[in-house]
Amino acid sequence: SGIVTFAHFETCRALLEPEKKFDIGIIGVPFDTATSYRPGARFGPSAIRQASQRQSEKRGYNLRAGYNPYKEWATLMDCGDIPVTPVCNEVALEQMTDAFEELVLRRQSASMPNHPPRYIALGGDHSIILPHLRALRKVYGRVAVIHFDAHLDTYNSSKKNGYWDSEKTRFTHGSMLWMACEEGLISEDYNVHVGLRARIGGKDMDDYHEDTSQGWMRFSTDDIWINGVPAMESVLKKIKDRIPEGYPVYISLDVDCMDPGFAPGTGTMEPGGLTPREVIYLLRGMDFNLVGGDVVEVSPPYDTSEITATAASQVVYELITTMVEKGKPEIPLLRKN
Amino acid sequence: SGIVTFAHFETCRALLEPEKKFDIGIIGVPFDTATSYRPGARFGPSAIRQASQRQSEKRGYNLRAGYNPYKEWATLMDCGDIPVTPVCNEVALEQMTDAFEELVLRRQSASMPNHPPRYIALGGDHSIILPHLRALRKVYGRVAVIHFDAHLDTYNSSKKNGYWDSEKTRFTHGSMLWMACEEGLISEDYNVHVGLRARIGGKDMDDYHEDTSQGWMRFSTDDIWINGVPAMESVLKKIKDRIPEGYPVYISLDVDCMDPGFAPGTGTMEPGGLTPREVIYLLRGMDFNLVGGDVVEVSPPYDTSEITATAASQVVYELITTMVEKGKPEIPLLRKN
Amino acid sequence: SGIVTFAHFETCRALLEPEKKFDIGIIGVPFDTATSYRPGARFGPSAIRQASQRQSEKRGYNLRAGYNPYKEWATLMDCGDIPVTPVCNEVALEQMTDAFEELVLRRQSASMPNHPPRYIALGGDHSIILPHLRALRKVYGRVAVIHFDAHLDTYNSSKKNGYWDSEKTRFTHGSMLWMACEEGLISEDYNVHVGLRARIGGKDMDDYHEDTSQGWMRFSTDDIWINGVPAMESVLKKIKDRIPEGYPVYISLDVDCMDPGFAPGTGTMEPGGLTPREVIYLLRGMDFNLVGGDVVEVSPPYDTSEITATAASQVVYELITTMVEKGKPEIPLLRKN
Amino acid sequence: SGIVTFAHFETCRALLEPEKKFDIGIIGVPFDTATSYRPGARFGPSAIRQASQRQSEKRGYNLRAGYNPYKEWATLMDCGDIPVTPVCNEVALEQMTDAFEELVLRRQSASMPNHPPRYIALGGDHSIILPHLRALRKVYGRVAVIHFDAHLDTYNSSKKNGYWDSEKTRFTHGSMLWMACEEGLISEDYNVHVGLRARIGGKDMDDYHEDTSQGWMRFSTDDIWINGVPAMESVLKKIKDRIPEGYPVYISLDVDCMDPGFAPGTGTMEPGGLTPREVIYLLRGMDFNLVGGDVVEVSPPYDTSEITATAASQVVYELITTMVEKGKPEIPLLRKN
Amino acid sequence: SGIVTFAHFETCRALLEPEKKFDIGIIGVPFDTATSYRPGARFGPSAIRQASQRQSEKRGYNLRAGYNPYKEWATLMDCGDIPVTPVCNEVALEQMTDAFEELVLRRQSASMPNHPPRYIALGGDHSIILPHLRALRKVYGRVAVIHFDAHLDTYNSSKKNGYWDSEKTRFTHGSMLWMACEEGLISEDYNVHVGLRARIGGKDMDDYHEDTSQGWMRFSTDDIWINGVPAMESVLKKIKDRIPEGYPVYISLDVDCMDPGFAPGTGTMEPGGLTPREVIYLLRGMDFNLVGGDVVEVSPPYDTSEITATAASQVVYELITTMVEKGKPEIPLLRKN
Amino acid sequence: SGIVTFAHFETCRALLEPEKKFDIGIIGVPFDTATSYRPGARFGPSAIRQASQRQSEKRGYNLRAGYNPYKEWATLMDCGDIPVTPVCNEVALEQMTDAFEELVLRRQSASMPNHPPRYIALGGDHSIILPHLRALRKVYGRVAVIHFDAHLDTYNSSKKNGYWDSEKTRFTHGSMLWMACEEGLISEDYNVHVGLRARIGGKDMDDYHEDTSQGWMRFSTDDIWINGVPAMESVLKKIKDRIPEGYPVYISLDVDCMDPGFAPGTGTMEPGGLTPREVIYLLRGMDFNLVGGDVVEVSPPYDTSEITATAASQVVYELITTMVEKGKPEIPLLRKN
Ligand SMILES: [Mn+2]
Ligand SMILES: [Mn+2]
Ligand SMILES: [Mn+2]
Ligand SMILES: [Mn+2]
Ligand SMILES: [Mn+2]
Ligand SMILES: [Mn+2]
Ligand SMILES: [Mn+2]
Ligand SMILES: [Mn+2]
Ligand SMILES: [Mn+2]
Ligand SMILES: [Mn+2]
Ligand SMILES: [Mn+2]
Ligand SMILES: [Mn+2]
Repeated sequence: SGIVTFAHFETCRALLEPEKKFDIGIIGVPFDTATSYRPGARFGPSAIRQASQRQSEKRGYNLRAGYNPYKEWATLMDCGDIPVTPVCNEVALEQMTDAFEELVLRRQSASMPNHPPRYIALGGDHSIILPHLRALRKVYGRVAVIHFDAHLDTYNSSKKNGYWDSEKTRFTHGSMLWMACEEGLISEDYNVHVGLRARIGGKDMDDYHEDTSQGWMRFSTDDIWINGVPAMESVLKKIKDRIPEGYPVYISLDVDCMDPGFAPGTGTMEPGGLTPREVIYLLRGMDFNLVGGDVVEVSPPYDTSEITATAASQVVYELITTMVEKGKPEIPLLRKN
Repeated sequence: SGIVTFAHFETCRALLEPEKKFDIGIIGVPFDTATSYRPGARFGPSAIRQASQRQSEKRGYNLRAGYNPYKEWATLMDCGDIPVTPVCNEVALEQMTDAFEELVLRRQSASMPNHPPRYIALGGDHSIILPHLRALRKVYGRVAVIHFDAHLDTYNSSKKNGYWDSEKTRFTHGSMLWMACEEGLISEDYNVHVGLRARIGGKDMDDYHEDTSQGWMRFSTDDIWINGVPAMESVLKKIKDRIPEGYPVYISLDVDCMDPGFAPGTGTMEPGGLTPREVIYLLRGMDFNLVGGDVVEVSPPYDTSEITATAASQVVYELITTMVEKGKPEIPLLRKN
Repeated sequence: SGIVTFAHFETCRALLEPEKKFDIGIIGVPFDTATSYRPGARFGPSAIRQASQRQSEKRGYNLRAGYNPYKEWATLMDCGDIPVTPVCNEVALEQMTDAFEELVLRRQSASMPNHPPRYIALGGDHSIILPHLRALRKVYGRVAVIHFDAHLDTYNSSKKNGYWDSEKTRFTHGSMLWMACEEGLISEDYNVHVGLRARIGGKDMDDYHEDTSQGWMRFSTDDIWINGVPAMESVLKKIKDRIPEGYPVYISLDVDCMDPGFAPGTGTMEPGGLTPREVIYLLRGMDFNLVGGDVVEVSPPYDTSEITATAASQVVYELITTMVEKGKPEIPLLRKN
Repeated sequence: SGIVTFAHFETCRALLEPEKKFDIGIIGVPFDTATSYRPGARFGPSAIRQASQRQSEKRGYNLRAGYNPYKEWATLMDCGDIPVTPVCNEVALEQMTDAFEELVLRRQSASMPNHPPRYIALGGDHSIILPHLRALRKVYGRVAVIHFDAHLDTYNSSKKNGYWDSEKTRFTHGSMLWMACEEGLISEDYNVHVGLRARIGGKDMDDYHEDTSQGWMRFSTDDIWINGVPAMESVLKKIKDRIPEGYPVYISLDVDCMDPGFAPGTGTMEPGGLTPREVIYLLRGMDFNLVGGDVVEVSPPYDTSEITATAASQVVYELITTMVEKGKPEIPLLRKN
Repeated sequence: SGIVTFAHFETCRALLEPEKKFDIGIIGVPFDTATSYRPGARFGPSAIRQASQRQSEKRGYNLRAGYNPYKEWATLMDCGDIPVTPVCNEVALEQMTDAFEELVLRRQSASMPNHPPRYIALGGDHSIILPHLRALRKVYGRVAVIHFDAHLDTYNSSKKNGYWDSEKTRFTHGSMLWMACEEGLISEDYNVHVGLRARIGGKDMDDYHEDTSQGWMRFSTDDIWINGVPAMESVLKKIKDRIPEGYPVYISLDVDCMDPGFAPGTGTMEPGGLTPREVIYLLRGMDFNLVGGDVVEVSPPYDTSEITATAASQVVYELITTMVEKGKPEIPLLRKN
Repeated sequence: SGIVTFAHFETCRALLEPEKKFDIGIIGVPFDTATSYRPGARFGPSAIRQASQRQSEKRGYNLRAGYNPYKEWATLMDCGDIPVTPVCNEVALEQMTDAFEELVLRRQSASMPNHPPRYIALGGDHSIILPHLRALRKVYGRVAVIHFDAHLDTYNSSKKNGYWDSEKTRFTHGSMLWMACEEGLISEDYNVHVGLRARIGGKDMDDYHEDTSQGWMRFSTDDIWINGVPAMESVLKKIKDRIPEGYPVYISLDVDCMDPGFAPGTGTMEPGGLTPREVIYLLRGMDFNLVGGDVVEVSPPYDTSEITATAASQVVYELITTMVEKGKPEIPLLRKN
């Protein structure tokens, strides 16, 4: 119709229309004030939608999957954006938490009454995962996070690092996974980092040890590429071996997992990253019980010719492919624990 | 809601929902294959919408007009885009003609039953004015066109200029006003060019004489600026003296009327153009019986930091201000003549 | 030396070296999280410094002023940046307030012992003026602000505009001048806006009336250009007539006072703005008792070929010219009131 | 001389100077109105020429080939561009067909009298291959096409997909290879796609089956990279096994076969593509009886720092290397069948 | 033909083909190593030619002049570029001097046998005027230079300014007019600067006094705009009053005379400059006995969307208009003195 | 402090403050007038510093090395830039030679009295290596150069290639390694090229043979990637086998060794290059006795979103890692020979 929605999906004001039913929702989170360096990700949702305009139901067959996720059982919906203030992160986090709870806890999926729809969030900076996980926790219990990123994002921001550090500066795009662990939102042993390569703090591996203690397995970019596809297969196998069948999984992809050559439109670039085709390969290998996902840190003012946003829109497509192909998500018995 | 519409207006699929009522509609026309030089205007509607995001009903008071056009009697609607093929201009012109007739002839305005809504078209290249005028002609009779442009756009494309020229190559963004005259769509004596300065054909003023014979008055960019605001006032007075009170008027603004410094995002730049503030000044001085309008030739791949699209979105705002402030349009008795 | 400082000034860590003496300091404030739309101004100080590299003492003669401000009595210093968190505006405002108090209240100027140095702040978004004014208030008493901007920036953010509005969302780049008035920092009757043209709230001039009640005189962009240089002279005269001789004056220049064609590198562009030469003309006409100043809202990710940052660096140069040429600032008897 | 020609080749107005003799001609085709998404490829020929300026006879030794193609037996010529209307594709296709027939059928090569010169066409969008193949068909009979692309470009546009589809909208940059088959221009069994990865239509592999029935073998991007150079060697072997020795071959390279990181300057990007070095490797492995070739879909308004155009100019260089090294082309006995 | 020449003029290798006759030649000088700040002007000739592609004989009527300079008596020729080394300015200056002497002293104009053709040089940095003036001096004697620039470019580089200053560093784009005076190339009293505004050296007007002593009259940007068109008329009158009728005049336009908003693609931007329409107005008012001219300092890597190069190509068009309209140049009796 | 230094290192005016002691210095060389094609590298040092701002001692742990080079024994210093004229390469080379001799021969390292500090030079074009090697030669004797580049840079510029070639045009960014050999600065048998792929001169391998005779081993880009990591390991082994233990080694990295997709911000791009992760892998494998290094040819006007400068800043980080981890450099007995 000319009005830009993700892949020409139907749209509704999902936050205001609780009666609207769908199975998988795209939800934009135009928030970038927990960013430590180059901002701009607040325009990420809009840019990813624009870059998805060559995707459509009609030509949506995923050759690698052998499946057209836009033409199957699932009702797809672009839910628009969560309104979020750019001038106070405390308020913003409340807004996002309320919104995700509304979307996850007070909506029903179209094909599974009494189950919530699932969402792919469009960032926004990476911190937007925290409110999403808070809501998922209430449905699925703890979820395993597969985290594509050059950075750990599990920085323990309760450590006082400078004079001004305090409770108020704790929530950032480098620490929200630490907070997620502290809040008991994520699995105790099944979380996985993919694509790590950024410098870490201090003179030793303390950051890594702390990360391990929060239930994370780590694969660096070098772990992925140095030995080629066999290494990728082995990484995939290790992940599959670790996460129990049917366990709720969330895939979060920070575009800085890719090399700046492929993803200049982001805030904290790290040279030496993944290629888009490796990312797609890995995503295609992750046929988990996906209960949500996101693609984050797309900063359009730094993007060139839409290459980052286009890669991000492909990530969304791959996540939806998995969600639809794998079928409706399982909800553990022991939920809301 | 996060989904981008012009100035956050409500949106509907106006072409498919004839029952939807509104007074002023924004209609995108993503067509740029009648362009002679730099293309890209097919993404103009999307870029103008994006650049209008800081406009809203809440903060819409027009200081120069003393009026908030977004908060008055008029129901405003973003009608999305007209679907249009990029690979055959003959078909595209049919598509656009059908669409404008649907919008103008088979829709009712919200506050004036039995009257059509009015539209601001977002180009797209300048040729999109032709189908709009075709539809208006059927409601209002001939309309006077006030045409902001560096170029005449009244090129007589029936002249055979090269071996390949023919009926098929006649419809271009430089000739559609000549076609509009040939088709009897525009006034015989009240049309006005503002901002002219491009080189013309041949060794003399033939293009101008032909233009005159089609009912045009011409003001060059130099006519506007050389003597400053008094010159602008005099231009405005001449236009007002010429167009009879209540006569249906259409304002069409090609962003190349402005200097490339202010509007790099366009196809056929001409150095030495108007400034945005002159354009706004002139628009504010044109309180005619507006029955439609457009802003065209915004080519986002050549825009820098959205300056052209932002200027274009301001033009839309000024046109709507005039439409709403002036009140509902008069329809001449002698219509469809 | 290759290390980039403003106009090759000497640099010191002014916040850590209280013994360092200078008369006029450049102080960067890399803060942009009180921005309502396009961020990026956190990189403004760095970009302005880079764009000032063609300025130097050696070739610093200001032709319009007939004076080389870089080669006279004043000791000039680039004080670096104030460290400021990007993730919590409450903390950031404290950081900035502390820093400006340190710089203004606990430093001595080189040529006027017992007087503070004066500062030109490099934004950052416009909100950085608030902590600067807080510190100046303690030295000079209330100061008159001459505010170049397309926007009022006196928005009363204590009005609850939406569900989430609260004390916490009050401090923004559109409301800090309202806060400055509330805090008694600025003059009760001598403040001046120059360059206004943005849409305002509601259906009438309420925003303007509230603005008036806070001691502001307003000159729109149209007030400046429509009648040319005589209008500018008249504006200058009105301002001079209003501000008492010797009253402490602060000049704050938001680059969005200029047209987007000249200043694309900013967050909230408004078409129809001032030209750089008008800005320079006005600045040259303002030979007030300057006690501080700033240039703000330079957002490098949106700047093209450094044109905005270069214009900003010229503004700094003009402000310093005035400061140096006018001589050492007068401090009112009744200070700290 | 300063006037930009491909690799500083001599230039002539090849269409107007039939007496001019050369062996290999560069021919620009500034046509981009059969494009479905981002236009701009009309400026491709000019950009590729500019990006080739560091190539020259003097420093033209191809290390991978062990051969300097610009200093051997072949007379090289930049033939300029084919004039082509941007406002009517029917006329444009006629123009291009006439021009290629003129160039191929009515010119003689410098070193093989009675044989035509060979051409590398610079696109323009991909549809320009159709008129080239039409002309080649008349000399060489059917030719085998090796097609580097993320897309099939064999879309059967006789299928009515929407209300407006008709004979007139059939010729597009996604369907011209289907047309080429329908017209009997290409081999019945030796055509090869390399680099495929775009989404296809529908819910199954119908597009692929139709493609197979038109004589195509398909290698996806994944077929190329997943198993590294051995996979590339195997792909090359399969192609060589398939195409009979001496059969006339045409290599067409759509720059979107490469990942957007390497080729942002194009219209329909698909993440996860080939690298330039893989493309070069494959081209170097294709020592066929080349009778023509092209590099297409370079869209300069979306190119960044000329990287796409530079890669395209390298492709031209590799194709010429093969043409010259392999020697003069064979012409099948059974020509003009 | 697709090969890019200025305004589609015919081209020849003018330096190698002495028999080729023409009246006005375009000559590129891709030299930028006498630049003090941002380089890139070596690509200026190529960019200006590209930006002139919408100019042609067919549509070349200059409305302001009432004349089509491309369709009258004059034979126009794009002479390509002068080959010039980027690694040694001493050699480069020799190359340029030789080339201009070849072009000016050893070529005949088409319509005035025994007279040289005239040239518009495309820079390159501003220093390229020196070799051009050297050649003109030998034909016309001293010439009056009308110099559009933000800078004086008459810097006395024989002054030792730093340890490393010497004969070898004397030739720069800021001092070549001082050298031209020292070499007796320019008029003793008729030279004019237009558009000055850059900071100058030292604490007083010494640079200006030295400039005066070299025969220069100065008009700053402020002299042009502050009093509007009447001021421009008065400037024009002063110039006309000064330069004797028929005296040989050379117009040199550094694009930095314009504001960075209109000419970002240059090396040494100065905010507060001329507008393109003022430049065109002034050029149209200068109907002198033009014996040569140039447009310089176009630096494409800093240009945005070709706006600077397009303005430069308009300047060339205006200069040619004057040359052709005014008729063949007069050559003073006392030449070669 | 806000003032930008490499990785927030302390800075001093190293050339003027001989008493300042440090172990490893960053030294900018803003010189780009020995460049053959796209200039701009004069702004390279500034851009690399800006791009290093996310590096700091605090978060400097190199995961691949298992070491934080910024927090160990070495005193790190940003020494600013060497002042260098842009208008005479002869003078510039003198300036650079003097400066490097000052820095290397007349400074002491902090932790090894009587030993010089070591430097990483930030280019500038590649020719800046010559003065660096001249100074190192006087301390360490001949040094082995490991040269990452798409080009040989050993062009014998004493060959007269054109009419204007002479002693004066000899020093260029393509020939300075030939000069280094001629001057006896580099090892006779241990030099290594990595990443070669550019076209070379003539019709055979003469350039390579001449290169061999100057003591170079060559690894092309294809040698690195075609057989993957095993090939890289084998390349590393061959280099290690060749260079004697403890021999002084210099690593010079021209960013054009990388593919244009990763390093668009450079002057002479060659498609088909290395990836940043391959470069990092190779650098990590080169634990030589490093006595100096550089990263060159970063041209910011062509960089997009700082990706090239960020990769360059990573290279500096890797070089420093090696320098610090390997410990203090050995100085051969036979020095100053
Ligand atoms: Mn992250
Ligand atoms: Mn990250
Ligand atoms: Mn138009
Ligand atoms: Mn126009
Ligand atoms: Mn402001
Ligand atoms: Mn503002
Ligand atoms: Mn294709
Ligand atoms: Mn394709
Ligand atoms: Mn100049
Ligand atoms: Mn200048
Ligand atoms: Mn090199
Ligand atoms: Mn190189």
